[in-house]
Amino acid sequence: MQGTLLYGPRDVRFEERADPKISEPTDAIIKIVATCVCGSDLWPYRGIEELSQPQPMGHEYVGIVEDVGSAVKNIKVGDFVIGSFAISDNTCEICKAGYQSRCVHGQFVSQTIGTQAELARIPLADGTLVATPGRPDRDLIPSLLAASDVLGTGWFAADAASVGPGKTVVVIGDGAVGLLAVLASRQLGAERIIAMSRQAKRQELAREYGATNILTERGEAGVEKVKELTSGLGAHSVIEAVGTQESMLQAIRSTRPGGFIGYVGVSHNVKLDGEELFFSEVHLHGGPAPVRRFLPDLIERIWKRQINPGKVFDLQLPLAQVAEGYRAMDERRAIKVLLWP
Amino acid sequence: MQGTLLYGPRDVRFEERADPKISEPTDAIIKIVATCVCGSDLWPYRGIEELSQPQPMGHEYVGIVEDVGSAVKNIKVGDFVIGSFAISDNTCEICKAGYQSRCVHGQFVSQTIGTQAELARIPLADGTLVATPGRPDRDLIPSLLAASDVLGTGWFAADAASVGPGKTVVVIGDGAVGLLAVLASRQLGAERIIAMSRQAKRQELAREYGATNILTERGEAGVEKVKELTSGLGAHSVIEAVGTQESMLQAIRSTRPGGFIGYVGVSHNVKLDGEELFFSEVHLHGGPAPVRRFLPDLIERIWKRQINPGKVFDLQLPLAQVAEGYRAMDERRAIKVLLWP
Repeated sequence: MQGTLLYGPRDVRFEERADPKISEPTDAIIKIVATCVCGSDLWPYRGIEELSQPQPMGHEYVGIVEDVGSAVKNIKVGDFVIGSFAISDNTCEICKAGYQSRCVHGQFVSQTIGTQAELARIPLADGTLVATPGRPDRDLIPSLLAASDVLGTGWFAADAASVGPGKTVVVIGDGAVGLLAVLASRQLGAERIIAMSRQAKRQELAREYGATNILTERGEAGVEKVKELTSGLGAHSVIEAVGTQESMLQAIRSTRPGGFIGYVGVSHNVKLDGEELFFSEVHLHGGPAPVRRFLPDLIERIWKRQINPGKVFDLQLPLAQVAEGYRAMDERRAIKVLLWP
Repeated sequence: MQGTLLYGPRDVRFEERADPKISEPTDAIIKIVATCVCGSDLWPYRGIEELSQPQPMGHEYVGIVEDVGSAVKNIKVGDFVIGSFAISDNTCEICKAGYQSRCVHGQFVSQTIGTQAELARIPLADGTLVATPGRPDRDLIPSLLAASDVLGTGWFAADAASVGPGKTVVVIGDGAVGLLAVLASRQLGAERIIAMSRQAKRQELAREYGATNILTERGEAGVEKVKELTSGLGAHSVIEAVGTQESMLQAIRSTRPGGFIGYVGVSHNVKLDGEELFFSEVHLHGGPAPVRRFLPDLIERIWKRQINPGKVFDLQLPLAQVAEGYRAMDERRAIKVLLWP
């Protein structure tokens, strides 16, 4: 098969890779129907995360099951399936508590499997994959693919930030995760959703997804604007979907005492001062999103066409042009790039 | 009146101070019946927090109301009252959400009022003070005094750590707050309570308050022991009641993914690595405890003699001997020192 490898900073190649095979009885092989480039793929692409060898890329996927191991019970050949970037048995104590991204038998799809490819081996298929009610219409595929990571991650962030009716929510980060955190906040009943964004196209989608206010300020100026909008108190719920020192501080300072921060930007070079955090009196929760927890609900909302998260894909390319996909995301010409094998 | 001033590191003096007077119509003047030395008083006492001038000390108190301002409605002269170290109107949006320690009209009792004295002016008396159902028996006074800070803080920590039935809880810190967090965890129905302590007297009180396991290991060794006791997963709930880099890391590493940390040790020189926190996937909440939220419930439990938090006072002295009280706490000869004016 053909698949994507990252050789070094900004060096993405689409080339021949060995076909994956069933190696454990709990595996499934899926034919990828759609995959995409993630904001988190840009960290190694930009050289901020180092590589020791060419690395298979991609961790978002929808596909059709081609083969299953002898122990697979819930998933069968021919199913249309969605999985998250975290492999999970969905039966261990941590999974049952809703943290499938930290399954005791888990692993991440990134760095080993690589779903920016024609085929992928998915371990622990019964726990990891969720089948749709039938073959989806083609127009639903982008939304189902979004559920694989960015929608699930935005939803987790909103959940971690305790978003609900009557709440004022701030969303920091206008990438796909941030935009879908806006969508999630609307679905969860937030009263006001303040999206921080400077780019017209992203602002427009944020409004379409339910943002009631758009702020273009950043850092301390952004914090001040949020305070102005919240009687000086700060927001009840703040979603952090960037992962830098600046964005984390902006999140902490935009949250009222007793408020909640859901942070899902992968933290890079972030150091939090204990004293500031202590006196901020916020709730802080985040990490790799347990997307699997939310998948059945998200699939249902998409299937019923209640939500359209697939709109974050503003560029669609043949998988063979994956390198151009990375460039478009890196240069922020595209919010998110869908790749068709 | 006579009161306590800290002049510099380890220089505590009990000397003449001006009698407090009603200065706002919302003030009350109380005659202190009992006060005490707090673990957090040791930070400035040890010179870790700098002083710019002699500082009135003490923020824990029970007393009898001597005078009230014209706007005070809920509290009357002669009431036996308890307040927390945080002044709060108990009516603002933040107070109503349960964060009276961050009241928009709030202030801390430390550094300005100083309750290690014969009298104290309590601002926002209606919001800050809670009257007991009547004059307490003398043996209840230590427990009522404990409710003013250490019990309320331990209770908040257990609440922040989401302690409840079926949960395994780790308590880091065997000072009065840690010990009372053990008591709170037991009251809140925890299944297992693992107290980290090396001192026989503190271990004994921890067991009496409901600890099921005592661990003497610290740091990474402590984390390993907790993992051994929790099938390798870590605890559901971890209470951090120290405030150092080591204790915070021990807390984060002792908590299972998706678990909860309640931290109430005032953070000193703590820097949390964003990446470690992200991948730990814990819930983190803490800060100055909103003791006022819990006071009515705590007073009721004490009044009915369901709990005996006053046992943390293992040394009682006349207020005039306050300097010896500080020495006993500093040298860890006493868990907590009660002072009788």
